[in-house]
Amino acid sequence: MSRVIAADALVLRRVAIDTYKENVAYLHRECDVYRAEGFQALSKVEVRANGRRILATLNVTSDPRIVQPHELGLSMDAFAQIGVEPGHPVSIAQAEPPSSIHALHRKIHGERLGREDFQAIVRDIAAHRYSKIELSAFVVATHRGELDREEVYFLTDAMIASGRRLDWHERLVVDKHCIGGIPGNRTSMLVVPIVAAHGLVCPKTSSRAITSPAGTADTMEVLAQVEMPFDQLSEIVRSHRACLAWGGTADLSPADDVLISVERPLSLDSPGQMVASILSKKIAAGSNHLVLDIPIGPTAKVRSMPEAQKLRRLFEYVAHRLGLSLDVVITDGRQPIGQGIGPVLEARDVMRVLQNHPLAPQDLRQKSLRLAGRLLECDPDIRGGDGYAIARDILDSGRALEKMRDIIQAQGAKPFDPERPELGAMTFEVTAERDGVVTGIDNFQMARIAQFAGAPKVKGAGVDLLRKLGESVKAGEVLYRVHASFPADLAFARQATSRDSAIRLGEPDEMPSVFVEF
Amino acid sequence: MSRVIAADALVLRRVAIDTYKENVAYLHRECDVYRAEGFQALSKVEVRANGRRILATLNVTSDPRIVQPHELGLSMDAFAQIGVEPGHPVSIAQAEPPSSIHALHRKIHGERLGREDFQAIVRDIAAHRYSKIELSAFVVATHRGELDREEVYFLTDAMIASGRRLDWHERLVVDKHCIGGIPGNRTSMLVVPIVAAHGLVCPKTSSRAITSPAGTADTMEVLAQVEMPFDQLSEIVRSHRACLAWGGTADLSPADDVLISVERPLSLDSPGQMVASILSKKIAAGSNHLVLDIPIGPTAKVRSMPEAQKLRRLFEYVAHRLGLSLDVVITDGRQPIGQGIGPVLEARDVMRVLQNHPLAPQDLRQKSLRLAGRLLECDPDIRGGDGYAIARDILDSGRALEKMRDIIQAQGAKPFDPERPELGAMTFEVTAERDGVVTGIDNFQMARIAQFAGAPKVKGAGVDLLRKLGESVKAGEVLYRVHASFPADLAFARQATSRDSAIRLGEPDEMPSVFVEF
Repeated sequence: MSRVIAADALVLRRVAIDTYKENVAYLHRECDVYRAEGFQALSKVEVRANGRRILATLNVTSDPRIVQPHELGLSMDAFAQIGVEPGHPVSIAQAEPPSSIHALHRKIHGERLGREDFQAIVRDIAAHRYSKIELSAFVVATHRGELDREEVYFLTDAMIASGRRLDWHERLVVDKHCIGGIPGNRTSMLVVPIVAAHGLVCPKTSSRAITSPAGTADTMEVLAQVEMPFDQLSEIVRSHRACLAWGGTADLSPADDVLISVERPLSLDSPGQMVASILSKKIAAGSNHLVLDIPIGPTAKVRSMPEAQKLRRLFEYVAHRLGLSLDVVITDGRQPIGQGIGPVLEARDVMRVLQNHPLAPQDLRQKSLRLAGRLLECDPDIRGGDGYAIARDILDSGRALEKMRDIIQAQGAKPFDPERPELGAMTFEVTAERDGVVTGIDNFQMARIAQFAGAPKVKGAGVDLLRKLGESVKAGEVLYRVHASFPADLAFARQATSRDSAIRLGEPDEMPSVFVEF
Repeated sequence: MSRVIAADALVLRRVAIDTYKENVAYLHRECDVYRAEGFQALSKVEVRANGRRILATLNVTSDPRIVQPHELGLSMDAFAQIGVEPGHPVSIAQAEPPSSIHALHRKIHGERLGREDFQAIVRDIAAHRYSKIELSAFVVATHRGELDREEVYFLTDAMIASGRRLDWHERLVVDKHCIGGIPGNRTSMLVVPIVAAHGLVCPKTSSRAITSPAGTADTMEVLAQVEMPFDQLSEIVRSHRACLAWGGTADLSPADDVLISVERPLSLDSPGQMVASILSKKIAAGSNHLVLDIPIGPTAKVRSMPEAQKLRRLFEYVAHRLGLSLDVVITDGRQPIGQGIGPVLEARDVMRVLQNHPLAPQDLRQKSLRLAGRLLECDPDIRGGDGYAIARDILDSGRALEKMRDIIQAQGAKPFDPERPELGAMTFEVTAERDGVVTGIDNFQMARIAQFAGAPKVKGAGVDLLRKLGESVKAGEVLYRVHASFPADLAFARQATSRDSAIRLGEPDEMPSVFVEF
């Protein structure tokens, strides 16, 4: 695999630099043991300490305040991975290329890969043996029509095998998921308490937002703790049939997290990668029945019904191969769901729906009820078509709110008053420049504005959307309000809105039509 | 393009970390002005000072010895690019994705791109606006059959336009180039003095080795200075008709250097990218007649004659579109050329050939004479077929040596005695394990052994190859000697040879045959 010359030749140091998902090792130019030039630029080195090995990109420094000539520095993530204390003896070696690189090259050259190839590649990716450059090459080489559906199945299966697989010891473990791209679409926080109140097991683990202004975990974190050890999570699910937690600690499909670190900056979200990413996470999390939401619209991830149907078939094929029961629903993705965009704003919307509050956004309520209804119908005691009414009864009766309060209490409640949510105190409003009807809301641009305002890291930041598709406005009326907590963020967001407000006004007949179930 | 909130809000600091070609900016987690979280992980930031702007990847630190909360740090390369002193006021902004990203996405999706698309992409690449991830995506998306020959022409033309284009004010400016992959292949250092002695203008600018154990610039640097301002280079060429310099300072096809920084770690060298890389550099350097060497062999870059012919046609098409006269020669690439591999060892071989020394490697002499002959034949006064004899006369008469001495003097001679070259003092020998005939020498593995030994950074390190294809050896006889200057390097090289010595022994009829002109 690689070569070491002198065991434990240097002294380990933690360098307090956050290099994100890329491990970086810092070597002094006048290193006592290794000549920095001996290591190829941009190739990885293998760092060894106490029997542990990690791969890292080498950076060379001449500043002894970063590392001294007898030391090897590791960036924060890399330091955590090597798992020994500062001062521990450490050695480095030239890292050989990952053994799956040959398979990667075959894929770049357009070959079809087999099950073992995907296993080898995914194993190397999960072990952080791929550089950003190699990851990017894999993502592009498997983009478009480059993966057939059998290959997508191999990839998904390999991703499941790369990490932990939870077992809830239940006959039916349900989940719902959306392919993303629609701001404010926090239906999980309503679907989970509804179906759990009915008695279904729904251990929801979510990611944090990566390029969106809020993920379910970010929004739930406004109301409760979302990071907890797996044992505690498991205990909560046993007691309450559900949780709404961050999935990052459970080591589910770890290769997915690594791949996302390059897919997102590239804005690549090919069907094969999307299917592998979503299904591997869900199956690793122990689900056996999934309702999947595919929104379509002019600024959604999927823009046409034929495209949505093609994606549905791929999801269904791979789910079937992996023994997952899957129910795909194609939904209206022409605009954001609900009113708030950003963690606190979305938590407010969710709580208003649960409380049957007069200001609760009706689109969020309706969509959540329909998704919950579909999920409920996997219960063999519920007749097809009855799910919606049962979900509505659970919500209207307050049982969903009660269940949500149980989950919040169990996870560790945080103070939150939906009547007085702690929104970013700095605001500005975007108003209509003319009379007209709202004929378009750009999901992507609206998400960017909320992100510039500070969401999701600044919980109270985001966009409060006061007008939706089809509504008439007069010139000067407020379309949406932006909340921020820092002057720089407010300025960034204002500049973004002045370039493109994300809202188009026109005549009623210019509204994009959509032909979906709900 | 991007947004700034407060002009000159931070104080610039140089962080003495070499991050290779990737610009890195360091921000303290408790920064006074910007919230580090406000910047998306892995997206670039734009750094502005004194009207200059550069893009950089953001790393966040909590160590005030790296940067303090009121400072912004830049890695060494990035600091050099911004071009102001430490302590200068500086601001940062979210960088928008490069404007050509849309064209990149179209290429990833398999579309054919037009001239303007390539211009936009190459402009952004040359300006360091692409991240490593985006560069890698471009390289993979333009790999294989993904570029038609018209697109290769567009790419080459855009790469020429991305930098400076030299004009020597001469009717005929000649050059030779090899596509690479053959260790020891230092023919340029012989061809240049031969053709210059004849009177042709040959301003040879070369790169340093990136993944090979020595480039022409590394080897020439043993004998003379190779880094000089363009004015001095120009003066040398005016006086002596030739130079042998490093091309890095002349800003020729700068996008090529950036692309190479990801192509090399990926070991991708697709025909389209190779043609664009080589021809853009040559045309930017002002050449109008080029002899191109394509070696073929089992461990060469090109492995078969049909592949070599296909590559030749692509080179010829693009050269023709760009008005470059091109003469492609396909050569024997079954093994290293000459005896030494590594800068000092190769300089010794070159000087021995020039001196008509009895130990001069005959394969290096013959190949250089044939290439020089082909180049001489672009002189309208030389009849086709006479070039070789003229080149031989120039070499045998000592005129080539004299010309080389002139060039060395003009560039700034370094002390060098070919009878006592300063080789790495630590050595070991690799011997034959059995009686037999040398039936294979793996170019790639031989290069790696020389690199592990320290070449090209350690000038005296490398491999002295004592046996070549077809020679008979007895068990225990020395096949090659490895030179190193540092114990770690010697150990790395020894481990590499024990895994794979790069030399195969067998029966005479097992030798790979080759059908090439020379």
